[in-house]
Amino acid sequence: MLNIGLLGLGTVGTGIVQILEERKKYLEKLIKQEISISKILVKDIDKKRDIEIDKEKLTTDIYEIIEDDNIDIIIEVLGGLDNPYYYIKEALNKGKDVITANKAVVAKHLEELTNLAKAKNKSFLYEASVGGGIPIIKPLKEQVNINQIQEIRGILNGTSNYILTKMISENLDFQEALETSQRLGYAEANPTDDIEGYDTRRKLRILSTIAFKDKIDEEDISCYGINSINFSDIKNIKSMSCTVKLLGTAIVNDNKYYASVEPVIVSQNSYFSKVDDANNLVSFIGDNVGELRFFGEGAGRFPTANAVLSDLIDITSNTYQRNCFLENSELDNINELYRGKYYMRINVKEDTKDKIEKYIVDNEIIEDMIEKKDSIAFTTKLISKKKLEKLIDIFMIDSKNYFVARLEV
Amino acid sequence: MLNIGLLGLGTVGTGIVQILEERKKYLEKLIKQEISISKILVKDIDKKRDIEIDKEKLTTDIYEIIEDDNIDIIIEVLGGLDNPYYYIKEALNKGKDVITANKAVVAKHLEELTNLAKAKNKSFLYEASVGGGIPIIKPLKEQVNINQIQEIRGILNGTSNYILTKMISENLDFQEALETSQRLGYAEANPTDDIEGYDTRRKLRILSTIAFKDKIDEEDISCYGINSINFSDIKNIKSMSCTVKLLGTAIVNDNKYYASVEPVIVSQNSYFSKVDDANNLVSFIGDNVGELRFFGEGAGRFPTANAVLSDLIDITSNTYQRNCFLENSELDNINELYRGKYYMRINVKEDTKDKIEKYIVDNEIIEDMIEKKDSIAFTTKLISKKKLEKLIDIFMIDSKNYFVARLEV
Repeated sequence: MLNIGLLGLGTVGTGIVQILEERKKYLEKLIKQEISISKILVKDIDKKRDIEIDKEKLTTDIYEIIEDDNIDIIIEVLGGLDNPYYYIKEALNKGKDVITANKAVVAKHLEELTNLAKAKNKSFLYEASVGGGIPIIKPLKEQVNINQIQEIRGILNGTSNYILTKMISENLDFQEALETSQRLGYAEANPTDDIEGYDTRRKLRILSTIAFKDKIDEEDISCYGINSINFSDIKNIKSMSCTVKLLGTAIVNDNKYYASVEPVIVSQNSYFSKVDDANNLVSFIGDNVGELRFFGEGAGRFPTANAVLSDLIDITSNTYQRNCFLENSELDNINELYRGKYYMRINVKEDTKDKIEKYIVDNEIIEDMIEKKDSIAFTTKLISKKKLEKLIDIFMIDSKNYFVARLEV
Repeated sequence: MLNIGLLGLGTVGTGIVQILEERKKYLEKLIKQEISISKILVKDIDKKRDIEIDKEKLTTDIYEIIEDDNIDIIIEVLGGLDNPYYYIKEALNKGKDVITANKAVVAKHLEELTNLAKAKNKSFLYEASVGGGIPIIKPLKEQVNINQIQEIRGILNGTSNYILTKMISENLDFQEALETSQRLGYAEANPTDDIEGYDTRRKLRILSTIAFKDKIDEEDISCYGINSINFSDIKNIKSMSCTVKLLGTAIVNDNKYYASVEPVIVSQNSYFSKVDDANNLVSFIGDNVGELRFFGEGAGRFPTANAVLSDLIDITSNTYQRNCFLENSELDNINELYRGKYYMRINVKEDTKDKIEKYIVDNEIIEDMIEKKDSIAFTTKLISKKKLEKLIDIFMIDSKNYFVARLEV
């Protein structure tokens, strides 16, 4: 009998219970033992739920689960940071295998929890933490055994991709698109992590650490979001026959790496432009395998639960990847040195526009002027982003009043 | 010490030797034993080769390898059908694990070799047989544990995709594009299997059998190639703002399935249209995970060798998928009942054109006439393909003189 302790019975937790119920016979035959979710940690036992669940199994006391020696595996789908981290650590210390979908915890504590699991000869798996239903963590861990990974790129946040898709396809302003996605459940009430790029950054931190075999921290990844994009940007981007995506990018070369999260303007011919709505896409390049791309639903009850259950099967079948990916490759971060071409739009008063135009000409920033009517918008030569940051400083432009995206066309 | 017997030292075999050499230290640390390719089966020991290799290891006698009890794993990368099949069977019978890249053998003998491996408690793995470097066999085997797969679609043959890409992008006729791809090594001297769809059919046979948990034979898959496509088709397809791809498709619904290999006309907005050159893409839909897409290089020395080595690591780490996928779901083939919209172009003499036009109007086949100058080309209503086959019969049109593609726009 395999006893599971489930922490959390929200969207994903409910999906896990549902799939396990539906496929019980098949899975029990596959792993050659009975499966039982013995206890579930919830905030409120009496809350009305989507599914029928034996109330005896619900508890508000984490220790009832962690200290239950009959429980073999903990599945953590709570969300949040400090509590889940503590629970996971305690569970590993008690000799339980742990699966989590919690990207915040994984991003913050990947190395510590991996090492702890290793020391306890248990598993710490987190397929659902990146790319929703896309199998990406495991394939990446497998590919790094045979490849030097040179590059990772991805649309890793469903919410921001949904917003950008709506803005482009339905000519909506940012606020309208955000409200639509909140109404449809694609964005949370507080969308900061999604639209400011922090969620993408966490996922890129996880992927790039596995890929490059060195600890790439969240702080090592420069981060720009989409919260200041407006309808005139969309108009300008369309006039360039392009579209815009929030991309995570990490490139390594000769022991140096560049890692960023930023809006990127891509051609309508780019495969990224075909990743619509809340879908995700991860691409990486290995020296032997070449480029691989993985596409799928970036979030949602069943895709995420599916990823959690693939970890569960790997643990029970003993087929998870054990390779210790951390080799301390000691890569140098060269974000400061990176030079790209950018699109910039600034809202300023009429008389400042001319001053800005003079500045970007004098400082060899501008490549093409796109518009100088409602706002000033231009593309740049190949420059370091610092040059744009300096411009923002000098003209004291508020973060709400400009939008920068890298050009990849 | 892990002793490998390598059957074949062509393009892929050489790649395997090269990667194993280059990553020897890492891999030996990973699998915690020394790795040695102890013997290699070749046709000609004295042939000049790309790589330096100890001639002592080369043999022309398969029994020197199969009957060597020190050899644990056989990697078969010979190509061909009967000999490799016999070697693989003998190797499994002798209690060796087997890895193959040979799609012909896998397509013909998947069930028998899988069952034999199971009976011998050994592994029979074939990641490289579909999709070149793309990890697709293993992820699919994993996903079927948690999902009912409803649909598989893919660009599975690099050669035909390369030819179609060249015809579209460089306005080449079929023969020119074929010759270019032969010159560049993308097509073999005898390209029949690639351009007539048989290679795609083998791969779809393998994927759909795993996905649907029932034996889908090559003969169960209707098969149309691209060998009769010509420049006027390309012109017509472009005028529809579309492109054309050779797709394998298998759809299951309510214990009935449709499986085909055929040219499909897709919109330029379709993600299939972004799969250029010799690349492959596999998409499948599971009831929980939703749609997943996998993209990568469909062939080539290092991508294919990479896939073979991922199987090798799985065997040595004991992490391969053991799920016995065959459940004899007893699906019914309904290819005959399938109705689609098609594009058809026919080259006939001037006076026959009017007769064909009358026929396709009278029989409610035609939707739109595309051209009636150099040839007669039209799109159809939703019909069964039989109606087109009947037309071909009645007007006794030679297979060289017409081209049919399904419309997916």
